[in-house]
Amino acid sequence: MNGYSVFCVSDHTGVTVESVAKSVLAQFPHLEFSLITLPFVDSAEKVRETTVRILDTPQPLVFSSLTDPQLRAILGEAGIQSFDIFDLVAPAVGAALGQIATPSGGHTHGMAPDYEARMDAVNFALNLDDGLNPERLGQADLILVGVSRVGKTPTALYLALQYGLRAANYPLTPEDLEHHSLPGVLLAHLPRLRALTLSAERLAAIRQARYPDSRYASLAQCRAELDAAEALFRQYALPVTDTTRMSVEEIAARLRSLQQSLP
Amino acid sequence: MNGYSVFCVSDHTGVTVESVAKSVLAQFPHLEFSLITLPFVDSAEKVRETTVRILDTPQPLVFSSLTDPQLRAILGEAGIQSFDIFDLVAPAVGAALGQIATPSGGHTHGMAPDYEARMDAVNFALNLDDGLNPERLGQADLILVGVSRVGKTPTALYLALQYGLRAANYPLTPEDLEHHSLPGVLLAHLPRLRALTLSAERLAAIRQARYPDSRYASLAQCRAELDAAEALFRQYALPVTDTTRMSVEEIAARLRSLQQSLP
Repeated sequence: MNGYSVFCVSDHTGVTVESVAKSVLAQFPHLEFSLITLPFVDSAEKVRETTVRILDTPQPLVFSSLTDPQLRAILGEAGIQSFDIFDLVAPAVGAALGQIATPSGGHTHGMAPDYEARMDAVNFALNLDDGLNPERLGQADLILVGVSRVGKTPTALYLALQYGLRAANYPLTPEDLEHHSLPGVLLAHLPRLRALTLSAERLAAIRQARYPDSRYASLAQCRAELDAAEALFRQYALPVTDTTRMSVEEIAARLRSLQQSLP
Repeated sequence: MNGYSVFCVSDHTGVTVESVAKSVLAQFPHLEFSLITLPFVDSAEKVRETTVRILDTPQPLVFSSLTDPQLRAILGEAGIQSFDIFDLVAPAVGAALGQIATPSGGHTHGMAPDYEARMDAVNFALNLDDGLNPERLGQADLILVGVSRVGKTPTALYLALQYGLRAANYPLTPEDLEHHSLPGVLLAHLPRLRALTLSAERLAAIRQARYPDSRYASLAQCRAELDAAEALFRQYALPVTDTTRMSVEEIAARLRSLQQSLP
């Protein structure tokens, strides 16, 4: 390993600084690096331990998100250059606002105001996974519909965890598709239905990994189900997201954005 | 509403820039603002639409994460000041590396290399939720144990979605606790057990929201279960995380950090 050791030092979970480091380093495509995230570095003692570890490492590159400038200073005094979110971004924001950043404001530790809502949404997504408890569909912010293995469950969970949206998901079975109409239980909720589809090739690959060489995973079966499902989506004019080349994060961001643009 | 309208403009999901904006704005505790995230702003046309929307809004404050400097320039030419992650962070990193950022490197769109592993981990967490399929516990990276409603399921899902860790979770029932030993099926996996606990008051409040005025939700019952569970954790010297004041993100970051520090 002769690449860089990229440290992401945070006084909280490190999710933000890790995400910034990855985005920025993607702009240096030839760089080889391994990533080490150090969360909860929230005292002078822990910063000193971190300092020792960094100084012991060849070719370190340090990103940080340390609310307290005194903690950031410890890195600097040890001769470690760090790219700190607050150092780099807060002064520009402060100048625009005509205010000075107050470190004690800090992160939202622990349960942020939206925390309970997000956890409720996770339970909701689990309770209304895969067509369960359809009598509660009226409580959903949105209802994902699509054939088996199109990505409904992980998308619903991500919508809940990241955005606090209550997402149910309802599978369209081959039997449903034969009826050329949506299952009756969905008809009362048309404005909140969000259709997911993807290419038959990708669906077959996903199903193949789970049930190799089954009829369920065959390209012909996938294509037939997707064609029938897409005909239904058109029939009811549902908003459709093609997930073929999208990650769950991307699908969720798009659905949330759609949600916010609704009246 | 006489606060700021904070726009988070991204050519991708907007998760990173939204998270940076929230962290930085928390350092201005008296600021009133509402947050609008605009994801997938990835063409000159979409940036121009965004520009119109921002200019139409009183007191806008714009954070952005636009890989392509030409897209960022459109905001600037319209007289909009934006705090862009790449503008603010990439030059410092480039200087340290002795390289210039290559915008085309850009974000990792769609399925990043770890994507399949994360989705597999989500399915794993769902399949091994709440003690299901114990014969597969040997495939887990870690196994969360604790009493009912201690936060095992959302933590396992977050570990999977965010970090790609395969986390099973196993509930300690009142019957298990009476035996003064861990369930037999867990004994083969002791090094991978991670115990969760929390205060009896918090557990009672969580259970109360679900089953009001039940014995299950009573403070006495919660305290008895937690005392017995904690005695077991000590007996087997399991690493314990007290989640009383922790969010799922914090619990997961701590468990992952523990995971990385293991041999």
